Amino acid sequence: MGAVKNKRMPRAVRERQMLDAAVRTFGQRGYRAASMDEIADLAGVSKPLVYLYLNSKEDLFTACIRREAKALTAAVRAGVQPGLPADRQLWDGLRAFFTHTAENPDGWAVLHLQARTHGEPFAAEVAATREELVVFVTQLIAVAAREAHRNPSLPDREVAGLAEALVGAAESLATWANATPGVSAKQAAATLMDFAWAGLGNLMESRPWSGSGPADGLHR
Amino acid sequence: MGAVKNKRMPRAVRERQMLDAAVRTFGQRGYRAASMDEIADLAGVSKPLVYLYLNSKEDLFTACIRREAKALTAAVRAGVQPGLPADRQLWDGLRAFFTHTAENPDGWAVLHLQARTHGEPFAAEVAATREELVVFVTQLIAVAAREAHRNPSLPDREVAGLAEALVGAAESLATWANATPGVSAKQAAATLMDFAWAGLGNLMESRPWSGSGPADGLHR
Repeated sequence: MGAVKNKRMPRAVRERQMLDAAVRTFGQRGYRAASMDEIADLAGVSKPLVYLYLNSKEDLFTACIRREAKALTAAVRAGVQPGLPADRQLWDGLRAFFTHTAENPDGWAVLHLQARTHGEPFAAEVAATREELVVFVTQLIAVAAREAHRNPSLPDREVAGLAEALVGAAESLATWANATPGVSAKQAAATLMDFAWAGLGNLMESRPWSGSGPADGLHR
Repeated sequence: MGAVKNKRMPRAVRERQMLDAAVRTFGQRGYRAASMDEIADLAGVSKPLVYLYLNSKEDLFTACIRREAKALTAAVRAGVQPGLPADRQLWDGLRAFFTHTAENPDGWAVLHLQARTHGEPFAAEVAATREELVVFVTQLIAVAAREAHRNPSLPDREVAGLAEALVGAAESLATWANATPGVSAKQAAATLMDFAWAGLGNLMESRPWSGSGPADGLHR
């Protein structure tokens, strides 16, 4: 980015460069402080071109939210193989989630911090993505309950509550992990998986979830 | 509220009425849509008096955030007895938290939804309260680890991560519980306690946390 000004560049490539620059600027400076001048500079294009392509600062921010939301849910879905046991799917999904948020800290800041702190219509865009993740986790928990066969009738409402708890915990941990030097995506995923699967009670007794293997557990 | 216009009313009482009206209006309508006219009407005072007491819409909103944040942390602290085992303290704290957010849905909406969706300086006020709750939970988890004696060395960073996960899960569940008819504070607390303490793995095998007694468990 920055130096590329080839006028024959396809529109899609230019637009991607603008969105890359915008996500970085919005994520690091916040929606209000971010300037269209800075975004245009970072993308290596003129400000009028940004307006021509993306219309307004608001539309540009909305486009950033949509792109980052789509990328996040796609990353989680790509990380999970539907045929595997539910705890494996959950572990794979959490690792994919935390890997994506760690590799795209500006995108995550746009989704979790910026989009929610500047009112509608941005908050609604993020709520839709969150709902998609909640539905996905809800299905996993429901499947796990059926697989265990010991509690096939875990009530829908309990399953929904557990899914809300898990997604809220993941959001909180992703933001914390990105702000805490030295916490890897895998560690964040292991912390949440142990918390979610084994529970604090078992952790206290040194019995974390064992599915990620001895090298991946919590206590090292 | 509404009908009281006694001019001899002490300032503290008047101010409380204004804040009650403001929390209700901000919580239900949102910061931007809420009007000072509506707040003054609901408080049963003139609009100039609201400005005289609270200065501006922004200052009024900040005063609401501070009052509701203080009330929430006080409720959680009041619900917990320091001498009890850590899992009992956690259960008591969660019940106090969900009871408070259920009884004060407008206050919770101001803290969790409104304050965070309107940028600084409001978001910073809420972040400070959240940090206080995280520190409190972090201490509980650290104490629990020491109590269990089997894992006295649970690393500080893991404890911090678990506390972030738990607080994020509680925030998410409180908002969900308030939006879902028929979910009681006790049910929300039981769902999170089971999730946090026993873990999903044990839940699948019908072994929830048993500390809240048979009548308080998850599966009924």
